[in-house]
This record gives sequence, structure tokens and C-alpha cells, in this order.
Amino acid sequence: LSPTAKTITFLSDYGLDDEYAGVCHAVIARRCPQARVIDLSHGIPPGDVRVGALVLRGALPYAPAGVHLAVVDPGVGGARRAVALRAGEQLLVGPDNGLLIPAAQCLGGVREAVALDQSPERLEPVSSTFHGRDIFAPVAAALAAGVELGDVGAPLDPSSLVELGMPVARVEPEGLVAQVVHCDHFGNVILGADPLQLQEIGIRPGTRITVRAPGARGPAGRSASAAEHAATYATTFADVAEGHLLLYTDSLGMVALAVNRGSAGALLGVGRGQQLTLAPARGRA
Amino acid sequence: LSPTAKTITFLSDYGLDDEYAGVCHAVIARRCPQARVIDLSHGIPPGDVRVGALVLRGALPYAPAGVHLAVVDPGVGGARRAVALRAGEQLLVGPDNGLLIPAAQCLGGVREAVALDQSPERLEPVSSTFHGRDIFAPVAAALAAGVELGDVGAPLDPSSLVELGMPVARVEPEGLVAQVVHCDHFGNVILGADPLQLQEIGIRPGTRITVRAPGARGPAGRSASAAEHAATYATTFADVAEGHLLLYTDSLGMVALAVNRGSAGALLGVGRGQQLTLAPARGRA
Amino acid sequence: LSPTAKTITFLSDYGLDDEYAGVCHAVIARRCPQARVIDLSHGIPPGDVRVGALVLRGALPYAPAGVHLAVVDPGVGGARRAVALRAGEQLLVGPDNGLLIPAAQCLGGVREAVALDQSPERLEPVSSTFHGRDIFAPVAAALAAGVELGDVGAPLDPSSLVELGMPVARVEPEGLVAQVVHCDHFGNVILGADPLQLQEIGIRPGTRITVRAPGARGPAGRSASAAEHAATYATTFADVAEGHLLLYTDSLGMVALAVNRGSAGALLGVGRGQQLTLAPARGRA
Repeated sequence: LSPTAKTITFLSDYGLDDEYAGVCHAVIARRCPQARVIDLSHGIPPGDVRVGALVLRGALPYAPAGVHLAVVDPGVGGARRAVALRAGEQLLVGPDNGLLIPAAQCLGGVREAVALDQSPERLEPVSSTFHGRDIFAPVAAALAAGVELGDVGAPLDPSSLVELGMPVARVEPEGLVAQVVHCDHFGNVILGADPLQLQEIGIRPGTRITVRAPGARGPAGRSASAAEHAATYATTFADVAEGHLLLYTDSLGMVALAVNRGSAGALLGVGRGQQLTLAPARGRA
Repeated sequence: LSPTAKTITFLSDYGLDDEYAGVCHAVIARRCPQARVIDLSHGIPPGDVRVGALVLRGALPYAPAGVHLAVVDPGVGGARRAVALRAGEQLLVGPDNGLLIPAAQCLGGVREAVALDQSPERLEPVSSTFHGRDIFAPVAAALAAGVELGDVGAPLDPSSLVELGMPVARVEPEGLVAQVVHCDHFGNVILGADPLQLQEIGIRPGTRITVRAPGARGPAGRSASAAEHAATYATTFADVAEGHLLLYTDSLGMVALAVNRGSAGALLGVGRGQQLTLAPARGRA
Repeated sequence: LSPTAKTITFLSDYGLDDEYAGVCHAVIARRCPQARVIDLSHGIPPGDVRVGALVLRGALPYAPAGVHLAVVDPGVGGARRAVALRAGEQLLVGPDNGLLIPAAQCLGGVREAVALDQSPERLEPVSSTFHGRDIFAPVAAALAAGVELGDVGAPLDPSSLVELGMPVARVEPEGLVAQVVHCDHFGNVILGADPLQLQEIGIRPGTRITVRAPGARGPAGRSASAAEHAATYATTFADVAEGHLLLYTDSLGMVALAVNRGSAGALLGVGRGQQLTLAPARGRA
């Protein structure tokens, strides 16, 4: 055994209630006992390739060089390919559904890619529903053990890899209309918007803003009028009073909303996929 | 320290909200710092020895040889014994409540067993409520460090080990009546039925079937009539349209129901312990 | 790389749904690849410094000597200091909000302390909302790699460290009034009371007691009368019949309530922060 096995990071939507992530760890330990595996997250919302791609892109700059295994794979067993990529000096393994691409672009772009569907490293018989165990984990372990990328699969043209549209905020007359990409464990609401877009509509650090949330449904099924919330564009939670809403740039560089010692998701009553509108507060600051 | 410590796999119902699994890791690291610990799952439903036994049996064939620590232990502190077993070349550690037996049988049957209640490896004082920390983890770590099975406890007759009845599906005139063993993170419904039993009642791959769920309670507390759902006996999720129900053999070899990009548990309105009836669809396919 | 890196234990309120704990692992692996990291718990209730402090104090006696990283940090980015401490031969790293102090006291008291806000080990730019990643994890990794405490921050007076009041039960005419500190995964209710306080009010092992819970709100918003529950002061779950309530000393030495094969939290209808009153049962035992 080589003491120089690469580190493997591991991200998935398997959750931790079931044994799926644990069985992948077991498979890796059999193929490459000396590999260190770092669980980035197994809490990607089930099947949400877009959130998986954003989290992977945000996390990898902090990870050791090595192999990066990512499985958010609602198309498992269907026509989508299983792939491994080289980006810069890093190796990425996962489904060909766009999950790996934003991270690979940050790492310098895809230089080489192989299809894993007939990989000599796969565990036979390959199940139809658990390619994490049967294809992705054993291939990641083989790469960590030093097997060459060209030896785990068949070459494919990187330009044929599936890409994923990311939600982009739009500047509208009423403000910046942005989609909720994720609502985290603390109730922080992460938006699909770039901090530069805030400048575009005149929202500056330290100023007051208005957040317009879709509003609850009325009793007769009619949509109630949207609710407006006052917030401050601040740097950190403690910049506003307890219970107050703030707009900030989160630790991954995305526009986000939080409540100091509270939950912005609960206050605004929004969840993933819904739209919010951000605008400078009217009247005196 | 020997560099050749065995791997320890670890399964429990401790969940990950509390520190119970983490403290067991700490105990293992003190007794055998060089052991690698693989968390198979800590999400077994609290006290559900049967699901724990099924998950352990399904996961161990993918794990490296070594020590397998499993704790689902509703009888902790009572009369049940704490045990360690040898099955094939593998060692299993846990409560004597049937949890370890299906896995041990898959590994070749129990060849040797010891009772751990007075183990010289236990941490004193032994608490009455946390034998994972005080007995099972330190014994597993000692075995990983190379201590002989005969030195961690007192010999016992393997035939005296508690066995657990597993739910078995029944062929009835109206179809195969099977119990929901588990409903996973993705909403997949795993049934206590063998794929061979499907053949017995004429359900063949590719054919349409009917799934009869118990049905919701009516407003006056009366049980509403059971609901019937159409499904296809398929190989993988993508074999059916989005939102459609499929019957399939899951990655552990059990009969299961899923909804492509959805939740079968939510669609059928069933949870663990409830019964479903599977039958070939009537009329033209 | 030194093979003698210290073990790092890691406790936080990050949860495991997001990538926060995973990214800290990645940061540690880059700075000190040979360090072993033991996750004690990431399930501390968000922002609950008091529960974090109790769990850390309870868990560290079982952990290997080394570095102990703990992050429950509702004041992140505000005025609170980031600190590293030596207590006995152990090193603790976290926010200066009282989280580390009860554990440090158990380990022999704080002998040396440094402020980390300008630590040479911090990752720049330091974000305003994720000091786990940018300050605490890299400092813990540097200490594990052998960097001296005095070299990761600026000396500070240990007597200036923030301490945290812990909830203490009060003896009242109607019994021992104690606060619910935590309700665990199994529904066990942990109280802020010392077992010695039970003796004070005449509750002895094996005797019957009465537990008075606050009671549900009435339909018109009025508080319904508090509910009384019979319980036994026992040693372990199996000492009472299934479904019965018991008072016991839990595995961390705290007074707790449980239901054998059930949930005391659900039975009593209480959660964290609420008060319960314990008294000897009236009438014949």
C-alpha cells in the first residue's frame, strides 16, 4: 500500500439517515484502505443537482488536492453517463448531469474526461439504483490509489459534458428579482444573485433595503398580497439588533439574507425555488 | 502501536443530533488510535432492531474484513447480554437481541461467541444506559488492536444467542401481502418480501401491477376504503415517467417501491410496519 | 509530516445538512493532513452555547488527549474574541462566549490563553460569518501539527474569559424545580439538576415520584392546569414497564427523565428551556 494515496472528498444527497454514504465509505476502504475520506456534505436536497453544484464549487477551494466524489443523481440507471474528469490537477467523479462542471471550471476547466459505464473498476453486478456504491466510489478509490484516469474509463470529448443553467437574478423596475437557491440549517436564505448586481440597483453596504416575499396564500386559496420586510445591507449578523433581518454576502460569496439569532427562512416564509425582490428602501434612510 | 489494526465498522440508532456516536468514536480512538472507523449508519430508527439487522446484513458484504460494531439496544441495562461473535473471519460486537445474527449468517455463521458483561475491556463504572460507550466500543477497539476474542469475554454457546423473526410476505388470494420494513431518505419504500415471491403470484419484469395501500382515515374516524395505485415492475427509476410509481429490486436485493423523482412513501401514505398488497394489474397490460 | 500529530475533536452547532462541518474538515486536512478528527457532535441546537458547553464537558473525559475544537458561535463577526486555551495538557479552540470553560475546568482549569483574531494561522480574507472555517479550524490544525499555543495568537489574561451561568435547579416547597436543558434523539429529557439535589428533597432510588409538567394551553388561549405524571426513580430503562416514566442519572451524570421504549419529551410535552417540578409521590408507595 502506498502511503501517498490521494485524499477523497465526498458530497451527496444521500442524507445520513440511511446507510448509502456509509456503504460508499466501506467500498472505498476496501479498494484503497489508506485513502482519507472527507465528507463535505450528504445533505444536498434529494435530487437537487443545482444546489449540489453550488456547494461543491464553494467547498473545493478549501479542500486538499486529490479526488472529489460527488453524487446527486436523480437519473441513476437511465441514459445519463457516469464520468470522471481532470480539472487542473484535481480529479472529479460523478454523474454527467452538470453537478461537477461549476467546480471544474473554478479549478481551471475540464482537461480530460472518461466515461465510467464500463469501467474495469466497477463492482459487478452493477445495480440500477445505487451507482454511488457500484461505480462512483470504487472509481474514486482507484484514482486515489494511483490508477490513471485513462485506465478507469473510456475517453470522451469534454465538450460533450452536460452543463447546468444556474439561476440568475434579474434587474426589474421593482428591484432585483432573485431565486432562493438554498435555506440552510440556521435559516439563512441563500439567493441566486451576485453581490455586484446589488450595486447595479443602488443597494450599498450599510443602507436600508426592502425585501419583498411572495406572501402566504389567503383562506380562499387566493394569494394574499406579498409581504414587505425592512432589512439592512450589513457585513455580519451582529451588525443588526437581535431578531432583525440583514442582507449580506455569505461565506461562499453569494447574496444571502439572515436574521441575527433567528431564522430568515421562517421570518420570510420562503423556501427553495421561490423568488424574492430586493430594492433600496424608499424614503429617508 | 501496530500499523495493522483492523477496520471497525459502526452502525447504531444513536442518530447524529446527540454526541452518543461521537463519544464512542472518542473511546475507540483512546483504546486503538490506529483503527479506522467507518460509520455505516447511525440513522436506524430508534430501537428498531429488525431494521438494524437488515441494514447490517446488507452493508457488511461491502465492508473491509475486521470488527463490526452495531448498537441498537432498547434493552440496555436490562437482562439482555452484551456479546462479541466470530463469523467467518469477521468479528461482530453488540447486544444479544438478534441484531448481529442475519449478518453473521451471511458471513458463514457464528463460530465462536463470548459474553461481555464482565469484559476486562469495559470502562468502569459501567453506566446503565450507555453500553455503547462503556462496553461495546472499548471491546471493538480492543479486538481491532489485536486482542483475542477469548480474552474480551466469557465463552458462551452460540446456539443460545437470541434470534429475531423477520417479516415475511404472504401469498394471499388478493396478492402478495408485504410489510413496509423501511422508508428511506428518498421516500423509497422497502418491503419485507423476496423478489422470488413476485414470480410466485405472476408479477414479471416489465408488467403492470396494482399496489393496494391501507388508505387514509375518513373524517369520522372510520377507515376509508384502501387506495389502489398503478405501478410498473421495472429495473430503475428512469424506466417510468416522472412522478410514476415503480416496483423494483433495491440495491440490497429487497422488493421496493419508488416514484421516479418523487417519494413513494408520500404517494402511498405509508410508513414502517404497515402492510401493502401487490398484485398483477387486471385487464389489458 | 510528523506521524505524531495530535487528535482533534470537533463539536459544533453546524448540523450535517449543510457543508459547514465538512469544509472545516477540509481546512484541517490541508493544514495538518496527518491529524485524526473525531466528530463529537454537530447537532448542538443552533446558537445554544449552554448545551454545547454541557456536551463538551461530558464528552472530553472520554476523548484522547489533544486539540478540542468547539464552535457554537451566535456572536460570530461581532465583538466576542476567538480564543485558544491550555487546560491541563489539553488545548481548546473556540469562541470566547463560555463554551469552552466548563470543559476546561474539568480538565484542571485554564493555564494559558491566547486571542486568535489576528492569528497568523487564519485564512485570509476572514469572512464575517464563518470563523469555523477561517479561524478556528486552521488554528486547531496548526496546534495539532505541533505549533506552540503562544505562536497562534496573542496572550490574554485567563481571568478575562467569558463565563456562562448554568441553569441550576431550585428547591421550592412544592419540590425541585428544574429546567429542561436538552431533549435527545430518543426523547430523553435532561434536566439542569444535580443528583444530590434529589436527596435533599427526599427522593431516593427505587421510590415513586411525581413529575409536574407545565401543561398544554387551553382552547381559549388560557393555560390549562399543569399535568402530573407518576414516575419511578430507577437505574435504567428496563427497570420500569414499557411506556412508563422513570427518573434516572444519565450517562453524563445529570438528572434525566425517560420512558422505557418511548419518548419522555413526547409524554410530558416539554422542550428545552421549560421547567419541570419533581417531588416524592404523596400517599403510599
